[in-house]
Amino acid sequence: MAWATMPIRTADEYIASLRNRKLKVYLFGEKVEEPVDHPVIRPSINAIADTYRLAEEDPQLASAQSSISGTRTNRFLHVTESVDDVVMQNRMQRRLGQRTGTCFQRCVGMDALNALYSTTFEIDARHGTSYHARLKTLLAGWQRENFVIGGAMTDVKGDRSKAPHEQEDPDMFVHITERRPDGVVIRGAKAHQTGCINSHWLLVMPTMRLSAADKDYAVCAAVPVDHPGITYIYGRQSCDSRALEGGDIDQGNALYGGQEALIVFEDVFVPNDHILMNGETDFAATLVERFTSYHRRSYVCKTGLGDVMIGAAATIADYNGASKASHVRDKLVEMAHLNETIYGAGIAASHESKRTKAGNYQCDDMLANVCKHNVTRFPYEISRLAQDLAGGLMVTLPSDQDFKSEVTGPILQKYLKGRPGVSTDNRRRVLRLIENMTLGRNAVGYLTESMHGAGSPQAQRVQIQRMMDLDGKKALAQKLAGVAPDKPGDKS
Amino acid sequence: MAWATMPIRTADEYIASLRNRKLKVYLFGEKVEEPVDHPVIRPSINAIADTYRLAEEDPQLASAQSSISGTRTNRFLHVTESVDDVVMQNRMQRRLGQRTGTCFQRCVGMDALNALYSTTFEIDARHGTSYHARLKTLLAGWQRENFVIGGAMTDVKGDRSKAPHEQEDPDMFVHITERRPDGVVIRGAKAHQTGCINSHWLLVMPTMRLSAADKDYAVCAAVPVDHPGITYIYGRQSCDSRALEGGDIDQGNALYGGQEALIVFEDVFVPNDHILMNGETDFAATLVERFTSYHRRSYVCKTGLGDVMIGAAATIADYNGASKASHVRDKLVEMAHLNETIYGAGIAASHESKRTKAGNYQCDDMLANVCKHNVTRFPYEISRLAQDLAGGLMVTLPSDQDFKSEVTGPILQKYLKGRPGVSTDNRRRVLRLIENMTLGRNAVGYLTESMHGAGSPQAQRVQIQRMMDLDGKKALAQKLAGVAPDKPGDKS
Amino acid sequence: MAWATMPIRTADEYIASLRNRKLKVYLFGEKVEEPVDHPVIRPSINAIADTYRLAEEDPQLASAQSSISGTRTNRFLHVTESVDDVVMQNRMQRRLGQRTGTCFQRCVGMDALNALYSTTFEIDARHGTSYHARLKTLLAGWQRENFVIGGAMTDVKGDRSKAPHEQEDPDMFVHITERRPDGVVIRGAKAHQTGCINSHWLLVMPTMRLSAADKDYAVCAAVPVDHPGITYIYGRQSCDSRALEGGDIDQGNALYGGQEALIVFEDVFVPNDHILMNGETDFAATLVERFTSYHRRSYVCKTGLGDVMIGAAATIADYNGASKASHVRDKLVEMAHLNETIYGAGIAASHESKRTKAGNYQCDDMLANVCKHNVTRFPYEISRLAQDLAGGLMVTLPSDQDFKSEVTGPILQKYLKGRPGVSTDNRRRVLRLIENMTLGRNAVGYLTESMHGAGSPQAQRVQIQRMMDLDGKKALAQKLAGVAPDKPGDKS
Amino acid sequence: MAWATMPIRTADEYIASLRNRKLKVYLFGEKVEEPVDHPVIRPSINAIADTYRLAEEDPQLASAQSSISGTRTNRFLHVTESVDDVVMQNRMQRRLGQRTGTCFQRCVGMDALNALYSTTFEIDARHGTSYHARLKTLLAGWQRENFVIGGAMTDVKGDRSKAPHEQEDPDMFVHITERRPDGVVIRGAKAHQTGCINSHWLLVMPTMRLSAADKDYAVCAAVPVDHPGITYIYGRQSCDSRALEGGDIDQGNALYGGQEALIVFEDVFVPNDHILMNGETDFAATLVERFTSYHRRSYVCKTGLGDVMIGAAATIADYNGASKASHVRDKLVEMAHLNETIYGAGIAASHESKRTKAGNYQCDDMLANVCKHNVTRFPYEISRLAQDLAGGLMVTLPSDQDFKSEVTGPILQKYLKGRPGVSTDNRRRVLRLIENMTLGRNAVGYLTESMHGAGSPQAQRVQIQRMMDLDGKKALAQKLAGVAPDKPGDKS
Repeated sequence: MAWATMPIRTADEYIASLRNRKLKVYLFGEKVEEPVDHPVIRPSINAIADTYRLAEEDPQLASAQSSISGTRTNRFLHVTESVDDVVMQNRMQRRLGQRTGTCFQRCVGMDALNALYSTTFEIDARHGTSYHARLKTLLAGWQRENFVIGGAMTDVKGDRSKAPHEQEDPDMFVHITERRPDGVVIRGAKAHQTGCINSHWLLVMPTMRLSAADKDYAVCAAVPVDHPGITYIYGRQSCDSRALEGGDIDQGNALYGGQEALIVFEDVFVPNDHILMNGETDFAATLVERFTSYHRRSYVCKTGLGDVMIGAAATIADYNGASKASHVRDKLVEMAHLNETIYGAGIAASHESKRTKAGNYQCDDMLANVCKHNVTRFPYEISRLAQDLAGGLMVTLPSDQDFKSEVTGPILQKYLKGRPGVSTDNRRRVLRLIENMTLGRNAVGYLTESMHGAGSPQAQRVQIQRMMDLDGKKALAQKLAGVAPDKPGDKS
Repeated sequence: MAWATMPIRTADEYIASLRNRKLKVYLFGEKVEEPVDHPVIRPSINAIADTYRLAEEDPQLASAQSSISGTRTNRFLHVTESVDDVVMQNRMQRRLGQRTGTCFQRCVGMDALNALYSTTFEIDARHGTSYHARLKTLLAGWQRENFVIGGAMTDVKGDRSKAPHEQEDPDMFVHITERRPDGVVIRGAKAHQTGCINSHWLLVMPTMRLSAADKDYAVCAAVPVDHPGITYIYGRQSCDSRALEGGDIDQGNALYGGQEALIVFEDVFVPNDHILMNGETDFAATLVERFTSYHRRSYVCKTGLGDVMIGAAATIADYNGASKASHVRDKLVEMAHLNETIYGAGIAASHESKRTKAGNYQCDDMLANVCKHNVTRFPYEISRLAQDLAGGLMVTLPSDQDFKSEVTGPILQKYLKGRPGVSTDNRRRVLRLIENMTLGRNAVGYLTESMHGAGSPQAQRVQIQRMMDLDGKKALAQKLAGVAPDKPGDKS
Repeated sequence: MAWATMPIRTADEYIASLRNRKLKVYLFGEKVEEPVDHPVIRPSINAIADTYRLAEEDPQLASAQSSISGTRTNRFLHVTESVDDVVMQNRMQRRLGQRTGTCFQRCVGMDALNALYSTTFEIDARHGTSYHARLKTLLAGWQRENFVIGGAMTDVKGDRSKAPHEQEDPDMFVHITERRPDGVVIRGAKAHQTGCINSHWLLVMPTMRLSAADKDYAVCAAVPVDHPGITYIYGRQSCDSRALEGGDIDQGNALYGGQEALIVFEDVFVPNDHILMNGETDFAATLVERFTSYHRRSYVCKTGLGDVMIGAAATIADYNGASKASHVRDKLVEMAHLNETIYGAGIAASHESKRTKAGNYQCDDMLANVCKHNVTRFPYEISRLAQDLAGGLMVTLPSDQDFKSEVTGPILQKYLKGRPGVSTDNRRRVLRLIENMTLGRNAVGYLTESMHGAGSPQAQRVQIQRMMDLDGKKALAQKLAGVAPDKPGDKS
Repeated sequence: MAWATMPIRTADEYIASLRNRKLKVYLFGEKVEEPVDHPVIRPSINAIADTYRLAEEDPQLASAQSSISGTRTNRFLHVTESVDDVVMQNRMQRRLGQRTGTCFQRCVGMDALNALYSTTFEIDARHGTSYHARLKTLLAGWQRENFVIGGAMTDVKGDRSKAPHEQEDPDMFVHITERRPDGVVIRGAKAHQTGCINSHWLLVMPTMRLSAADKDYAVCAAVPVDHPGITYIYGRQSCDSRALEGGDIDQGNALYGGQEALIVFEDVFVPNDHILMNGETDFAATLVERFTSYHRRSYVCKTGLGDVMIGAAATIADYNGASKASHVRDKLVEMAHLNETIYGAGIAASHESKRTKAGNYQCDDMLANVCKHNVTRFPYEISRLAQDLAGGLMVTLPSDQDFKSEVTGPILQKYLKGRPGVSTDNRRRVLRLIENMTLGRNAVGYLTESMHGAGSPQAQRVQIQRMMDLDGKKALAQKLAGVAPDKPGDKS
């Protein structure tokens, strides 16, 4: 593809690489001419751009030496070669959360690469296929070009009580509609897709455990983002249109934002070299579980956002002249405690990684689920405490236009001052940032995505239940109680 | 005033009464020609209109026979004449919360009337003034006209470490700038004012305990909303501009919304008949505490919003085909339990009301504070659970314009279906309602206002501490432990 | 019965009335000669004695004028004749909790009387029986004698997946084994029976909804506690044997304790006049639900214990010299807030009582369940906070014997001092009280009984689910969202 | 010392090594002749014995190759030589918690050794002392003998508002009363001492930050447990005397228990070779902080107890026939989630260890504090849920003697059966285990010690506040909000 004749070296080059791709992107009922220049979309591009910037500024943190391409590659493109590589992902994620205050969208691809790496190896071992080598070839190229890879997993699912092949409309899950000698044709849609329009390639994957009858749904494929058969319909976020108003205050975080879209594949041809699973339904669950396990631990990124939230709350408490009140300090400590509790479980999951047969490293599943499950709870409490410290002005502050108005501006400057030495503008900037993260655009990422991304809370509970070894724990208790252990078949 | 030659009898007459008042209202940097017709403002007018509609539909619930005017009056204008009158306020508030899903803004005035009723009586008794009679005269008129009365309490406060009279800029608290034989002139601003532009009169009150040096700040006055000396600057809310987009879906709750504004009094003259406190600093705290006590219990209105939230969560779970899952049922029960816990403390505070010297009824202060303190917590958890049940689509759903587009509409209709029999439109309507209440315009009312309205959490804790009778509780414990009771002066 | 020739007027007369009854009570493997004098049992008798004492000291609170006997009667024997009567039960319960720091055991009978009063009335109306008149005759006598009435409901249940009549052993539920012209013979056992050995009469009731096949299990009977066919086996409590050690410190609360026993009915004859239900299976559920509803709200007694716990925590914080630390104050406020939240829902349930067909008053079921459900949570958190404030010494304090020893006593007095002016003995008395309520004898009442008494948490959730009117709430949400309401049959 | 002529190789040899030491141990007001044979004390000896047994059964887990003595040593005696050594401590601790269901008491010494190892190195570097070499010599001997080392830190503290040297009675903190050429004499008492009577040596350490004036209090010394100048007064635990009743059921966990005592040093001479700090007040805080940091993370042992609790709750749910109820499964999952959340933060703290100047490894302080802070909360909630699943019978079950009685035994066997196939005895064994861990002896370890051991909750909050880098977080927020960063001195 023309847009990738040279490796991308900088954030600016990355942004340039996204131009002129003629994507079919729809937003607010209209086709977007150039997503890079659209004020609603641009912040999500800026967020990924920061993953390039960080790799330049702190290469040890955000890049790694890859044995696949033999190059130093962005860590988001790196297949983990040690436990430390898994741990470093978490450190990088927290740092990027701190820098952007939003979802920087690039973890899905990283986690997909790593899950595919071990899964394709095992498919090949059982089925005599050659997906693993294909993946390595693709990876080597992507690493050299320094591309952004998105992972597309969540199907729209239709009637949830039915399997893919039982759906009235077969397109409710992405599936193969035609098998040709040189490749396959796929069709369907992926929902809630984080970071696609700002990616270069998509890794399409199945969304759940499949049975033999779902063979056409067991497809894994690399597809270029600018494939003409793809349509993107942009999801709207709370307060998204503030980006259209001009000004950088009312947006709260004007520079960075997340992105989610519905991706529609309308008979997209995938050549053989880009196919990484084709009908091996017995490995769909494996792939999903490995991806999910990595990805649930990737939610330590939210501790980076939590750091921003705590900092914002501390700043506004200071601006309000309340930073020394014991209840204010205590709330900040509670926010930090909850935030670090998330981090602890996540980084522990990474530290406890084990080597796969393919040679990369897979995190601990129990701790990964525990991390994510806390992410479905604590950011909400951290937000609640931030709103407590912010004060009611956060939601009664007039618009930036009113501050700029000759009539109302001076009145507002007079009456909405905080403690001496703090400008009214700084005060509302920080209030708008807290609004942004608790009610606005980045509340989508900090709260609702924390709830549902990488699986809703109940998905983690099911997984915790599977792994909690209840029989082993019962045996411990029975031994101490002096009870003969359950015999097989005893269990009710 | 011309706009009130006839009593208001219906919701429509109420809306008509608000027209052509030439208020100076500013929003998005511009003067609003007619607030009644402004799409951002109108939903807040509709919410108050429903208080008239309810009084027509269910007079027992939403009106009462007043011994002051001798008429049957809207309950929001009624001074409580029995314990049951206090309890009925709560019932009406929950009902209106259920009907509007938002803050209907009329409680501030009701609670102010009742707090002033007993306070003016006691000021007169001590100081030989005649505020109580004035108030009754005003009330009789307002009841006959069926006006909406707003209560304006929260000053902007400036440097919070200083008393009103110590502020560098004296306008940081509303105060008397001139005393004339026929009245006083006041100046200053009230912040976060709920429901003012859609009221007829404002009751201006001091915002906190005052000392003798703050004499000019101890002012209580009835001021018509359309006084030419008043400027209103509208507070912006999350997602407010969706009301400007047309369409009724993306707003979530297109009909109803809250309203908060900064009210600026620029040398407003108040004639003697409208003055209800003038320098009696010794009663400022009494007035604030009585108002606050009523108002903290008034937050049972949020249980009406909670009912809507639970209903919305149950509906979307049904649309998603998940309503029979045990974890879904369990979450709905938890939401209801939390919601009723709020209600219990609130209605208990009302049931435990005591007669004041003036003859009206004042709710129990401990339980009122406990009610409000739970309101600073449980709606956040109810919202979290609602977002859990809603699923991620709530924040990735494309805009209504995309659904209406000929290009993307059919694609979205195809892919975003729920379970059979549920239309895509109904699904997104309910999702948008949950978004509205957890992230959007009514999240302001359901969450942030629940946090800060009627005093931030710490204010309730201070009040609970005052009333918890720790010495009495220590005596109970000491007696059972067989310890001689603390002697006076023993306390550390 | 000889032991009741004269009405009981005082706490001492009550205690005297319990002597020489030749009950078959077993404890620690032995028959107890005189329960009144047994150091483990006596505190539970003292607790009920205090219900007499309170009636003397504060007759308005703890007694009422009964229209049944025409006498002023102890409130625990009173059938509610007004909403205020229901409310006053709660006030009395909190007061007794404050005075005794334990379960005073007399509520079961009070709630049983009131539930039977309305249920027997309705049985008679449907079945033409005369239970209601019988009950009133019994009540009149009991009120005149001033007896303690226990309510016996919880059957041992055997295999919980089977109905009473399906059990392998029919005795798993109390049932009629023989019907004679002059009465019936019953058999079976009631478990976890609060306050029986210190009662005069037991009201035996069915434990759950019954079907027609369970006819022999639908029995309600008044049985004297000293019936020779009854055996009582005492339940042991945490730290119960400290009462056998002598000394009053290590017990924590030496004077008062709870009591639970297994009551075994071995072919007990009940004459017709004492039968209040005999085969009317259609009313078993009604009786259970009414009793349960009253009884769940009766758990406001635990707020009285909570008052003691808060007082104990405040005292020990003072003794430790920490009472001014902001985190200590904050924890005390949190304890009070949780305690009053329980109280709010309970007293609200009582205030919202409705008149039954029989003329007495039944509390609000939703709020009663919400009250009890909070009781299964908040006392645990209050206890946790009390342990936090107590410090580790609470569980490392040597025994009272070590303090009395000539060798170790002086060492302990030297080293275990608190702040100046606080004796070591007072310090350990308060620590032992907190131990008593969080780990010891009264932890049974404050914690585990709070969890399981009047139904375990899930029972409340089931009841909340039934009453939460989910369809009504869905309609509220659908209306605001602009969705046509569900049609009948729409519900998934 | 005679009792250590040969290395201890087994649990039995360990127990034998404790005999005939003529310790002055007082319990229940009497001198204990032989602690090893005292039924109240023996379970705490058994718990430590299991640390020997585990080292035999799983040497990789519970022993390590020491470069100090050149031997394979019990891990509790090992100075960490790698990050993995720190991590392995946590794994061993969880395993021992699972095996004993109680505090196995040996962590204090392990954490003290490691804290002293780096601290003595740094004292020597600054002050030219030779404590580090002394410590290594002592360690080499202890490792060869395979001794149990206790760490004694917590002084009784007297008036907490005063520094050690300001106390009226200088003995409120252990201190040097005499300095001689060959050593020092110390005096004072250490409170709440976990595992001392079952140790061989004690490491006495200061308890907090000291100033220059506290020079005599800056003492660190190795003292043999059987030094004649030491008196031990045993702390009583909830239900301790059940161990005196005979029978193994009512104790719940008859084999294992914790131990805490007051240790009184009455002019104990310490020869120079056993002195590890002598007046270097500038290192008191360093030592305390390093010890505390290790020790807060050592509380992952409680996840082993949590595993037992979850297993006990699952077993009793099974015995009650309720194990398939969705709410039961959900509660078990919640218990596991909370338990693993503790584990995550703890193991993460170990994984994130850094090398000290002395060459051993020190865990991450923030995560260690976060781990411990969760330990002050979650075990209480896990216990609450266990009590929920246990049912009320846990606290109303008659005594073992009643089950053994010919009269009441058959009645209880008949009536207290659970589901078919479950013996009454097994049922009560498991109920007694849950009682033991939530109200009884091991509730002391699982709950109250979880609250206060290694510092009370507020101590962790203070430490979290210190380390949370609020200024850094504020800078993150300010950058995103577009606010110029605070200048030095800006901070309120």
